[in-house]
Amino acid sequence: MVGMQPHHDGSALYVENETPQLGESVELRVRIPADFGERAVWLRHVEDGEPQLVRAKRAGNGPGERWYAAELPIHHLVSNYRWQLDVGSTSFWLNGRGVIDHDVTDEADFRITTFAPAPSWARGAVIYQIFPDRFARSAHADQHPTPAWAKPARWNDESIGVPGKAALQFYGGDLGGIEEHLSHISALGVDAIYLTPVFPAPSNHRYNASSFDHVDPLLGGDQALASLSKAAHARGIKIFSDLTTNHTGSEHEWFRTERDFYYWQPYRGLDYVGWFGHKSLPKLNWGAERLWERMVDGPDSIVAKYLSAPFELDGWRIDVANMTGRFQTDDHANEVARHIRATMEEADPESLLISEHWHDAQHDLRGDGWHANMNYSGFTRPMWSWLSKQHTPHGKEAVWIPARGGRQLVTSLKEFGATVPWKVTSAQWNIIGSHDTPRIRTLVGSAALVEVAAALAFTYPGSPFFFAGDEGGLLGHNGEAARQTMPWDDIPAGGRRWDPDTAAVFHELGRLRHACAPLRTGGLRWVFAAEDAVGFLRETAREKVLVVLARAPWAGTTLPFKGDPHPLYQGRLAQPATCTPTHFGLQISGAGPAVGVWRIG
Amino acid sequence: MVGMQPHHDGSALYVENETPQLGESVELRVRIPADFGERAVWLRHVEDGEPQLVRAKRAGNGPGERWYAAELPIHHLVSNYRWQLDVGSTSFWLNGRGVIDHDVTDEADFRITTFAPAPSWARGAVIYQIFPDRFARSAHADQHPTPAWAKPARWNDESIGVPGKAALQFYGGDLGGIEEHLSHISALGVDAIYLTPVFPAPSNHRYNASSFDHVDPLLGGDQALASLSKAAHARGIKIFSDLTTNHTGSEHEWFRTERDFYYWQPYRGLDYVGWFGHKSLPKLNWGAERLWERMVDGPDSIVAKYLSAPFELDGWRIDVANMTGRFQTDDHANEVARHIRATMEEADPESLLISEHWHDAQHDLRGDGWHANMNYSGFTRPMWSWLSKQHTPHGKEAVWIPARGGRQLVTSLKEFGATVPWKVTSAQWNIIGSHDTPRIRTLVGSAALVEVAAALAFTYPGSPFFFAGDEGGLLGHNGEAARQTMPWDDIPAGGRRWDPDTAAVFHELGRLRHACAPLRTGGLRWVFAAEDAVGFLRETAREKVLVVLARAPWAGTTLPFKGDPHPLYQGRLAQPATCTPTHFGLQISGAGPAVGVWRIG
Repeated sequence: MVGMQPHHDGSALYVENETPQLGESVELRVRIPADFGERAVWLRHVEDGEPQLVRAKRAGNGPGERWYAAELPIHHLVSNYRWQLDVGSTSFWLNGRGVIDHDVTDEADFRITTFAPAPSWARGAVIYQIFPDRFARSAHADQHPTPAWAKPARWNDESIGVPGKAALQFYGGDLGGIEEHLSHISALGVDAIYLTPVFPAPSNHRYNASSFDHVDPLLGGDQALASLSKAAHARGIKIFSDLTTNHTGSEHEWFRTERDFYYWQPYRGLDYVGWFGHKSLPKLNWGAERLWERMVDGPDSIVAKYLSAPFELDGWRIDVANMTGRFQTDDHANEVARHIRATMEEADPESLLISEHWHDAQHDLRGDGWHANMNYSGFTRPMWSWLSKQHTPHGKEAVWIPARGGRQLVTSLKEFGATVPWKVTSAQWNIIGSHDTPRIRTLVGSAALVEVAAALAFTYPGSPFFFAGDEGGLLGHNGEAARQTMPWDDIPAGGRRWDPDTAAVFHELGRLRHACAPLRTGGLRWVFAAEDAVGFLRETAREKVLVVLARAPWAGTTLPFKGDPHPLYQGRLAQPATCTPTHFGLQISGAGPAVGVWRIG
Repeated sequence: MVGMQPHHDGSALYVENETPQLGESVELRVRIPADFGERAVWLRHVEDGEPQLVRAKRAGNGPGERWYAAELPIHHLVSNYRWQLDVGSTSFWLNGRGVIDHDVTDEADFRITTFAPAPSWARGAVIYQIFPDRFARSAHADQHPTPAWAKPARWNDESIGVPGKAALQFYGGDLGGIEEHLSHISALGVDAIYLTPVFPAPSNHRYNASSFDHVDPLLGGDQALASLSKAAHARGIKIFSDLTTNHTGSEHEWFRTERDFYYWQPYRGLDYVGWFGHKSLPKLNWGAERLWERMVDGPDSIVAKYLSAPFELDGWRIDVANMTGRFQTDDHANEVARHIRATMEEADPESLLISEHWHDAQHDLRGDGWHANMNYSGFTRPMWSWLSKQHTPHGKEAVWIPARGGRQLVTSLKEFGATVPWKVTSAQWNIIGSHDTPRIRTLVGSAALVEVAAALAFTYPGSPFFFAGDEGGLLGHNGEAARQTMPWDDIPAGGRRWDPDTAAVFHELGRLRHACAPLRTGGLRWVFAAEDAVGFLRETAREKVLVVLARAPWAGTTLPFKGDPHPLYQGRLAQPATCTPTHFGLQISGAGPAVGVWRIG
């Protein structure tokens, strides 16, 4: 029998107003199990560097629980707070990591900010990543000459898994190809397409741009992007692309004409700073004022240009955001983020700004710059550690996937999740796989476990994110090998490179995500974490949804909830988990691998 | 039988150079128990926002352990790092909180900086706090007229424990009185005296200064401070005082003549910002450029004046440093700290700068501003929670001392300790009691537990710090009541207000501190944490010292060390702990309350 813990998070169930302004106050609520024994509940917040304690008042009862409420005065742009729960002769803290029995720093305090959240369409939206060279060739693709750097490949050739060499393998997918296959994307319930870079560059990945002035003619040029954007919008699908603010390609004209945009000093064997010493990727120096004008500030900037007609992109994913503007004693990163954000809000208030940051991104995620992040650290790595059968996917001995259990999965999700405002959490890109990772099917080793991974992404707060082809079980042991072409000949009926059963899982999970409001807007409350199975609630004021995921057979458990569970999703390739009302509560079966999602209240 | 864990800290045993400069590299070492099973050890550091992994190489063996070493390139003013320990199909992190089995943020990474440490005299120095009104009256004291605000008290009257009212109770201690009793201080092994403010003010605490231009005539004026400083220095004792950078008193001339030095806006019922709405304590606005000149910048500043002849103070403790320069969207705190530091280094390179910050001070403790902090959060509160019998010492219902066990003591010490560079750790003021806390004797309820508390402070990394009179067991249930006068009539033979046995404990612990180098410069390795007893090692390359502290009888344990323990300190009021070599290791008795310190290697 699982016991419940006191709980608070940043969702509407607990926070009256997620975007209060200076001088206002916000009512915050916390729920405490009836058997907890609290004799006083305090809201601790920090004002001008000094903690303040506000006594919380009783605010009604739920089944088997008491609620308390307190007013948080908004004195800062970012307010941090936690709860002090006095019990007998001791007290506990309740912060973003849960109930803590010792004194702690403020790192895991809840955070509320005065900054606008991500646009509402983006919060919990389903994101589909496309690497344009690999998605589809339009009828026009044959007309493009093969560039000098390219090693042409046939569409069904296997992609090369060797970094460097892989970048030259050229399949010739183009934007017209994507437009022709929008129905495939639309059927998956995708809310937004994210395209890796579309600027000209001497590589298939195009992260070494030679210009930001126009779309690569190999992809169909400006006209093709405008056309794709229009077609996607007609289907209600947002579309956005990728900008490198950390570096350009060495063939970029700026590298010849705008010397002060770069760092000219000896570094790793070069006479300028290249990204980790890569000669072809000179690092931008944001100490150069004119770089701001050219790239990020105002309606004539690159940032604004592609959000405007005829392109009408809906946002940017910023490459290597974690390193942008950072070099030794320089740190312009957050200022770059804020400038990009301001320009985007001016150009299109509904646009979305996402950073690439694989690590501890908390100091970049207050939410005044990037709306949210590619959540590798706070979602992908913990999920991999729980589900992956393969532990050295990057081809580097040092960076690998340690095998860990369900308790560690939940602890790591909380570890990182606690450090960002809920507004950010609700827009994080929870990545099942990307062009920089192995394919999920390769990592977890079975279609059943792909379903468990995808079910976690589609039920967790934030945006489920997958790389085109994950939905058909494409393979690849590292990021380069993962850049397989879409096997259109095998789709949708199935074939050597396409698993229609996995595609059906993604289709159903997309449907679930759209049909079930708590999965997009509800709070997150963990209810159990066993070695091989975990369970959590997604809750709004109106609905309570239970999610159970198992990676293997386990003992099962009983949860302290009453009521009649209504199944919303049941494992298809994994087993269906079962949830049976008993006198003692809801009994969860020990099936595994298994997935179950139920409305329980 | 206790098992050992992999270990690293910032001490010289593990870090080749604690103050490397940009472009240099530092050899870092880590020790791993022989039975740990590591197959690879990596140093993870972060460069320009991106983690880097450096493979550590074998660097010899110790008894039952393997050592590894790796080079850390110094690319930033503050470099953070941790160790990745690969074992079988999983891996562990080793950071400042210990060995972690899941992915973590960088908060508890070890930190190394390019900033100079605190002066060597201050690292681990024994600090003795004096509240001048309460220490001693010189022969001259009778000549000072009693000020209009004061409510005179007789020397042996009990101090009032009611905030506000307490501030007017006037005993008339003066600086000459301190000078007359330097032999008392010197006998305790005190390295430095810290005086609460000595500037004129309409209160006995003098935190509401009416001027910074001269020393309060009630204390004997400028001449008395110069004389005290000279006499202290003649005994090899450093001396310093207290500056309020957050606010002045409302009677300060600046409040009339320098309006832009303050915040003029409605706040908590006033038309200016007072410290938490206190009318008498208008908050300084560090947006005013001339305030910097007057107070902190250059040789004519207040900061520099008192470090120079004739005063020759050895440093400043900065009052309410956590709030200094912080108001809503303003945050000048770290800049104020850096300016004060720069001015002090110019005036006296051997001077010490300490902040008052009771909470999560990590973001103020990189070490480029304050050298270190009054370590209430990272020492005092955890210690209290383990030893205190009284839980509501501040007279506020919200802020009290929860009762917690030994595991939580160690966890909280690590929680905060992990967030600052070792250089800072080694100069932190580990407070047994201050003018702002209850007396330790009142809190813990017995002289035996005072010895346990003091033994922790005198053996822990950093500076043992106590409030004049703690050494004689003075009482007081809150900060105000703690400001008892020194009962000179009872000293040293003992009497109603003075316990000579406790004084002998402080005397012996002071002697131990000076005689035993590892207590000042050694690393810190926890070896066990039971509910009622904890043990740790302080180690240098030459010596290994074991400390065992028990608050109550417990089960005892056996530690995996060989050798012949040489006792350095044994409980006098608490019981002596025993440490017996056996075939299985060192057997620690279950006596308690108990203290034992041994050289074991």
